[in-house]
Amino acid sequence: MAEEAKKLAAYAAVDNHVQNNQVIGVGSGSTIVYSVDRLAERVRQENLNIVCVPTSFQARQLILQHGLTLSDLDRHPELDVAIDGADEVDSDLTLIKGGGGCLTQEKVVAGCAKHFVVIADYRKDSKALGQQWKKGVPIEVIPMAYVPVSRRIAKCFGGEASLRMAVSKAGPVVTDNSNFILDWKFDQAQNWKDVNTAIKMIPGVVETGLFVGMAERAYFGMEDGSVQVRDPPVN
Amino acid sequence: MAEEAKKLAAYAAVDNHVQNNQVIGVGSGSTIVYSVDRLAERVRQENLNIVCVPTSFQARQLILQHGLTLSDLDRHPELDVAIDGADEVDSDLTLIKGGGGCLTQEKVVAGCAKHFVVIADYRKDSKALGQQWKKGVPIEVIPMAYVPVSRRIAKCFGGEASLRMAVSKAGPVVTDNSNFILDWKFDQAQNWKDVNTAIKMIPGVVETGLFVGMAERAYFGMEDGSVQVRDPPVN
Repeated sequence: MAEEAKKLAAYAAVDNHVQNNQVIGVGSGSTIVYSVDRLAERVRQENLNIVCVPTSFQARQLILQHGLTLSDLDRHPELDVAIDGADEVDSDLTLIKGGGGCLTQEKVVAGCAKHFVVIADYRKDSKALGQQWKKGVPIEVIPMAYVPVSRRIAKCFGGEASLRMAVSKAGPVVTDNSNFILDWKFDQAQNWKDVNTAIKMIPGVVETGLFVGMAERAYFGMEDGSVQVRDPPVN
Repeated sequence: MAEEAKKLAAYAAVDNHVQNNQVIGVGSGSTIVYSVDRLAERVRQENLNIVCVPTSFQARQLILQHGLTLSDLDRHPELDVAIDGADEVDSDLTLIKGGGGCLTQEKVVAGCAKHFVVIADYRKDSKALGQQWKKGVPIEVIPMAYVPVSRRIAKCFGGEASLRMAVSKAGPVVTDNSNFILDWKFDQAQNWKDVNTAIKMIPGVVETGLFVGMAERAYFGMEDGSVQVRDPPVN
């Protein structure tokens, strides 16, 4: 059910936003797999000239496995569209990302794109960030700083920021950038723009999984087989 | 001449700020060598119980070579004093650091210290940041992001941000955190607090070499053999 919803959202985003002769940012995670499937299908069928910039090792592998043209931000520092998943999407299109641990490169690539589009299944639609999955906000940190950063976040913003442990290796998860991840579970809603700035400014923080004011459209695959489109509210 | 001045500043800081039973942050660079010399001397002579937290591999080696007690921020996330050098120190005690490429860990350690003290020779006293050495502000970046970050800094703040190249290896300098360094040479003075925040918020930026509002005292070793003390202006 959720898998079909992911596919619906991914196909809608690729069909509505990808055109010939574009540079495309390819996100990470399980929903993105469907978007790369569809991208490859369209490139074959329509003979599109598309260049892909990955947001992770996973994305890089997906691009190569599908025979798409791989590039990077050195060669293509400006992207036409970036398409990525999210762990939670609220009504402002503020996102929590980084469940897959790729938040930093995802935010870099999204920040280089003229248009940043989010794809998700209905379960990621969040009335109040953090309430849906209770997994908190991922925060990438320099390994030597994880203890003081964790303490400072708890002290300044409440809740608890705990080191993400690996499942198929001993010890903590190590990111594609050789860093650690803290998962910050907070007690109450925050001003996400301000808290994102305050956390990123802590020495030792590389990036936060809060994406504020970045997404310009979200596609939700729904349980009934439809796709819901959400744009940010007009101020 | 400059070496003698470095030593004067280092000795003054260690003598005025280090007491028994403290946790000390040990900076990086050429001036710090003298402070570790003096620290080791005092530990021996006064039988001090001191724990040292390094800001780099260089600092770690200095601590071990001098037989001092090595710790880290996992075990000691709160420091009593951090002592570090700087490339430039202005009248507000805003610093440019990172000539030695260790800015991120230096800022993490300084941020964990109750007191952050700077030591420098007279040449580091700067009327206007960036005018003294023309080396610019070091900015540590995730390697995959160095091109878009460099372009964005030049576009938003003027000047040029160029990748720091290594001397004894091919290609760029790689930091102790496996990242790259951009040296941003700017055209004109900036509001350093605001520009520090704005640069750090760029996705892909790990840390900047601007230390704003962190140092609480600077010791300058002078050409005439004296030591000048500078505190930040009272607002």
